[in-house]
Formats: sequence, C-alpha cells, structure tokens
Amino acid sequence: MAKKDVSSAKGGPPSGGKLAQTALALHKKLGGKIRIMPAAPVRNRADLSLVYTPGVAAVSSYVAKYPQEARDYTIKGRMVAVISDGSAVLGLGNIGALGALPVMEGKCALFKTFAGVDAFPIVLDTTPLKLRSASTQEEIDFIVQTVIAIAPAFGGINLEDIGAPKCFEIEKRISDALDIPVMHDDQHGTAIVVLAGMINALKVVGKKMSSAKFVILGAGAAGTATAKLLHVAGAKNIVVLDSKGIVDSKRPEPHKRELAKFNTRNVRGGLREALTGADVLLGVSGPNLVKAEDIRLMAKKAIVFAMANPTPEIMPDEAKRGGAMVVGTGRSDFPNQINNSLAFPGIFRGALDHGVTKITDEMKVKAAKAIAALVKKPTANYVIPDMFDRRAPLAVAKVIR
Amino acid sequence: MAKKDVSSAKGGPPSGGKLAQTALALHKKLGGKIRIMPAAPVRNRADLSLVYTPGVAAVSSYVAKYPQEARDYTIKGRMVAVISDGSAVLGLGNIGALGALPVMEGKCALFKTFAGVDAFPIVLDTTPLKLRSASTQEEIDFIVQTVIAIAPAFGGINLEDIGAPKCFEIEKRISDALDIPVMHDDQHGTAIVVLAGMINALKVVGKKMSSAKFVILGAGAAGTATAKLLHVAGAKNIVVLDSKGIVDSKRPEPHKRELAKFNTRNVRGGLREALTGADVLLGVSGPNLVKAEDIRLMAKKAIVFAMANPTPEIMPDEAKRGGAMVVGTGRSDFPNQINNSLAFPGIFRGALDHGVTKITDEMKVKAAKAIAALVKKPTANYVIPDMFDRRAPLAVAKVIR
Repeated sequence: MAKKDVSSAKGGPPSGGKLAQTALALHKKLGGKIRIMPAAPVRNRADLSLVYTPGVAAVSSYVAKYPQEARDYTIKGRMVAVISDGSAVLGLGNIGALGALPVMEGKCALFKTFAGVDAFPIVLDTTPLKLRSASTQEEIDFIVQTVIAIAPAFGGINLEDIGAPKCFEIEKRISDALDIPVMHDDQHGTAIVVLAGMINALKVVGKKMSSAKFVILGAGAAGTATAKLLHVAGAKNIVVLDSKGIVDSKRPEPHKRELAKFNTRNVRGGLREALTGADVLLGVSGPNLVKAEDIRLMAKKAIVFAMANPTPEIMPDEAKRGGAMVVGTGRSDFPNQINNSLAFPGIFRGALDHGVTKITDEMKVKAAKAIAALVKKPTANYVIPDMFDRRAPLAVAKVIR
Repeated sequence: MAKKDVSSAKGGPPSGGKLAQTALALHKKLGGKIRIMPAAPVRNRADLSLVYTPGVAAVSSYVAKYPQEARDYTIKGRMVAVISDGSAVLGLGNIGALGALPVMEGKCALFKTFAGVDAFPIVLDTTPLKLRSASTQEEIDFIVQTVIAIAPAFGGINLEDIGAPKCFEIEKRISDALDIPVMHDDQHGTAIVVLAGMINALKVVGKKMSSAKFVILGAGAAGTATAKLLHVAGAKNIVVLDSKGIVDSKRPEPHKRELAKFNTRNVRGGLREALTGADVLLGVSGPNLVKAEDIRLMAKKAIVFAMANPTPEIMPDEAKRGGAMVVGTGRSDFPNQINNSLAFPGIFRGALDHGVTKITDEMKVKAAKAIAALVKKPTANYVIPDMFDRRAPLAVAKVIR
C-alpha cells in the first residue's frame, strides 16, 4: 500500500523527474542491488573438500535422509524468496516479470538491512501462458506449481505485487502445500501496519475498535486483508468500497462478497453514504479520490489513513480541513507514515528463528500490537514508529512464534 | 565427472568417515554456504527512495519497456542460476531436491570465489509429479517450463546433476527458449576439461587427435558430451561403452545411437574389444571397472583418464602397470586432476561479460585450448592446470565471446 505508486500508473512512467533520473543512474552504476557472498572461504583443496566434493556428499545424503535437518545444514534455514509475477507492480500495474525485478531486489536489500534476513528475488514469466491465451485459472495453477517446485531451497516465501483477486487463491494454495511460512505482503504486511497505527490512533481520539465505524476505500489485496485483520482485532463495522461503490453480497467476486459481511450497518451507496458518521477512513486506492467536504461527513475526531502513493486519496492538510484529527499517509514527508517495511522483515525474521510454518491471524495481531507498543505516548502526529526505528523488526520477530 | 561420488552410491552414504563428519559439522556451523548482501546501503529515507519506492518505479518502468536494458539495471547482468532436480546428485543418484541443495550451494560459492560470478541455487521438487505417476516426458516438460518461468532474474543458467538421458532434452529446450546462456555442466564442463587435458596428453605421447583411437567408458551426460566435443575437436574414432557393452546403432536411446556413429572402426563387443589397440581410455562411469590387464590391450603410450570419483575406474599405479603413459583422475591426490572447476566459472564469467547468449561448440573448443595453453610444457604428470590456478577462469572467460 504505502508503495502503491498509483498516480504514476495514470500519469505514465515517472521517468522525467529528478528522483527518477537519480534512481536510474544509481541502478545502472550498481548493476543489480544484491550480491551473493560465500559464507566460508574456498582457499585450497582442504576447504574445497569440505564445502564441495567429496565432503559435501555426506551433507547431501544426510539432508536427503532427514529433510527437517535441511534448515540447519543448508540455506533453507535463512533464505526467503521474494516472488512476483509482475502483475501488480507498485502502481504501474501488470508490467511483467522483468519490470518487477528492481522492486523485488530492493525488497531483498531491505530484508537484509532491517532484519538480517537473506532474501532472493524470483520473478515469474507467464508470457508463454498469455501467448496461448490461457485462462486466469490456468495462470493461477501455473504460478502455484512453479512456486511449490522451487520452494525447497527456501525457509519462507514473500509473495509480492501479485494482482487481486488471483493473489488470494495463489497464497492459500502455496501456503497449504508447503511447510514454510508464505505471506503475500501487499495483503498482510499492509494490514499489520494499518492495524498498528489504528491501535494508537484510536487511543488518540478516544474511540474503541469494537464500536468504531470503519470505511475502507479499495477492495484489492491491501483493502481486503486490512478489513479482515481489523475484524479479527475486534472491528465490527467495516464498509468497503471499490470503484463501483460499496461492495455488497451480490458482487461476482467471492472476496468482495466476503467483505460485504463486515458491513453490519448495511450501508448502501457510494463514498458519501459510507463516510456519513464514520470514524475511520482507510484509503488503499488511488490519488485525489476524497475531498475535504467528504471528510466533513464523518463523525467528530475522525481518523484518515490515505495511503495511495505517492499521491494520497486526500492530502493531509485537506483532510484536517475536513475535520480529521489523526491523518496518516504512505509518504515519508508527512507524519504517520504507514509503511510495510515496519512489518515484513520482522515477520520473516521471527518465523525463521522460531521455526514457524504458518503466519496466523493471531501472529499478525500480535505483530501489530508489538509495533504499536513502540509508541509510548501516541499523539495525532505520532501513531506509528518511524520506518527506520530499529526496534520494530526485533519487536515483531519476538512475537512471531 | 570429477565430482561423481560413485563409490558412495554403492557403499551407502559416507557419513562415517572423518571428512564426512568434518563436512557435516562445518555445514551445521555455517547454516548454508551463501549469503545475500545489499549492493548499496539503505541508511535513511534518501537511500530508500532510490533503491526502493518511490524511485524504483522509474527503473521498473524502464526495464519493462526496454527489456534488453535489464542486464545493466538489475541483477540479470551478473546472476547465474545453478539448477538441479536432484535426479543425479554426485554419485548418490536420485536423492531429490533437498539432497541436491548442499552441492548447488557449494557450486555457487565456487562461482564467486573463482570468477566473481554471483550465482544462486535453485532445486526443483518434482515430488508432485511422482505422486501422480507422471511420465518422464511430463517431468521433462515440467522442469523445462519451470526453469523458463523463473529465468527473467538470471543472466545464465547452469544446469547440474540432472540425470541422462532427460538432461539432453531439458538443456536443449531451455536453451532454445531463452536468450541467455544455458549449460548443463555435467556434460559440457566435463567435456571441455577432458578436451583440455587431452590436447596436452596427446602432445606428451606424440599422437594426433584425428588418428587416435578413443574409448569412452560411460554413456551418460559426461560421456556423451565428451564424445561429441572430442569429435568436434577432430577425433574421428571414438568407441563408447555403457554397462551393456559398446553402444551401437540398435540401442533404444537416441543419444546412444548418435554416439554409435563415432565408432568408425565398427568395433563390436565389450571393454576388452574396445580397448584392443586403443590410444585413449576415458572413464566416466564407476569404480574399479578396469584392470591393468585391460590397459595392456591398448596401444603403446596409452592415455588413461579414469574420472569416477572418489574411486576411479582404475587407480593410477595400476594403469601405469598396465602400460599407460599419461594418467589422469578426478582426484586431487594424484597428478592430472580433471575437474570441471577449471571451466564453468570462466565460461559464465565470459558469457556475462561479453553478452553471449549461447555457449557454442566452437566456444567450448576454444575454452579447452585456452586451459590447455596454460601448461607451457606438458609432461606425463602435468597435462592440465591445477584447479586453483587463477589464470584458468580468466583465460576461459576471454574466449567465451
């Protein structure tokens, strides 16, 4: 969410700006953002006979015989795959595997930097399926079986930038098939960090999770997972909207019908109907979709997380003019930056350290609470830790067990 | 070849020896033999905005639009995948993906150590196919499509420890489908290093490639590729044997029928018939299959490369007792170690540096000649450079263009 570059999707690639030019130059200079380093030197025959043949034969035989031991004797105990099919890259949309690669490399760099997790990018080319006009279901099947096939070397799988709704089935089937943690970060990383900020924002405005009225603008991967996790955390009243308005039980997409169940007030209509009397607006959609006058429809002491990136659904000053008390965005140049980086490194650090094989809802809530707890005295301008807060990955890793 | 641990395949896992115990202890201590390192630091928001969002969006858009540029802007320009399905691991046989992982990690460590090539291990789990009793052809199709699917992040693919004959079709189809170099090292790495040693060995014994009579014991991946490359390099008379004897045009396996064409003397029978009057014996099979009395059947000044590992087809002293003049093995404790490590790091270093998309036969011959040329004055005990000879990867890389 925080990284959904929605505006550039509509305005063409941001290749003209100064940041873009600097980023391009840096990438060309680096030639890729990660490197492989041997964990032990190979200086002579004695070294070689241990890390390679003939000594390695004993290790191969051993882990083939005792697969559970692979976590201790191979990279499986430390390596996370960051996997995308390039179907929903940032806000750029379905730009394919190669286009996704710079993002996945960056994520791998963050994994190591923030939590010491070794991570490697895998981008899946589904062009052969598109060429033979394969169905979406065939594409899902292909992605699922490909990821399962390459899973043995990995101790965790971070799915990334895979479009909704196929991301839901892909994540579930891969997770069910494997005995390592599998997490689609666009869903759950987002949901965890939103919940963390929400716990503190509700304190600031003096409202309760169970009685607050939530509105989520956006019913994709992030919106869906956020609604579900808020519900697990006690929210009882959540209205979700997509571009067609409030989602209801007659929608063709199963995941949207499921979201309709959270609409316990049975609100009908569009954004204005949803916002009337609402306590919280969470934007995971596109730029400039909300005006100050919309915010004025909300209850007093409203909370607005407008997380479309780089241009939010509504700019913070405008949201405040509409009466919002706590405002967050995905941007680093405003207070309360809601960014996945607070969660995913610690999630996988904890999972690897504690031998966790599934990331449960309970763990996600614990992770959100752990992040929230790092803010000792929440205020309207400080409901979530800074994304470079070194305590965050440690606090999250501790509760993923 | 040099790493075919044939004896342990027959004698059970070598878990009892001191080397095995030391290797197991080292692997447990390391917890995997490679690490991922970020190529640039991520210290603050400015760094982050370049290597990740929002700056990375420009790079993603750019490489999606100009795929050829991915080599300069992503890891594609430097990263080789070392891929195995675990079907022919060392001499341990079909021990599966996890069992293959320690070997592939080791190979990645060698890639970096010997030639500065970044390489990452991918091991393919084909269990789901086995569970539904899929045909060999279905398994080949699956491996081919899986490797093609994950190829975008890589600038080269080193296939490893994939059993014959399926390795031939797998390599060809993947190579045909992709615009990056694809090489099954058990075939071509072996063939290149054997040819390198042979060029010098023939000088030592004063014989010619074109008139020498070759016998290859073993018609798997290594034997097949070696026969073919020797033929490309000018050998006209090559008899190949498998466990059933000399392969002929009536064999059911297409690759063996092809090898039969090199048997221009039309020799029939078994090892003794093949060796009678032969100038060269190349062993890529199993331990202790050849006796001194077999070598005595060969022509004077015979060359014997007995490369089954760790126990050769015939020990060097016994081969010499049988009259061999030049003897090589896969082992480091005898002269003339024939080891793939002399070739594969430089092959991919050169391919990456020079934008080579296919490793041709011509390049392989050039690589062999480059390795051979490092031995200024070949003698019976020095026909091939030491595997730690730092000049080898450089010399090989230079001619892969």
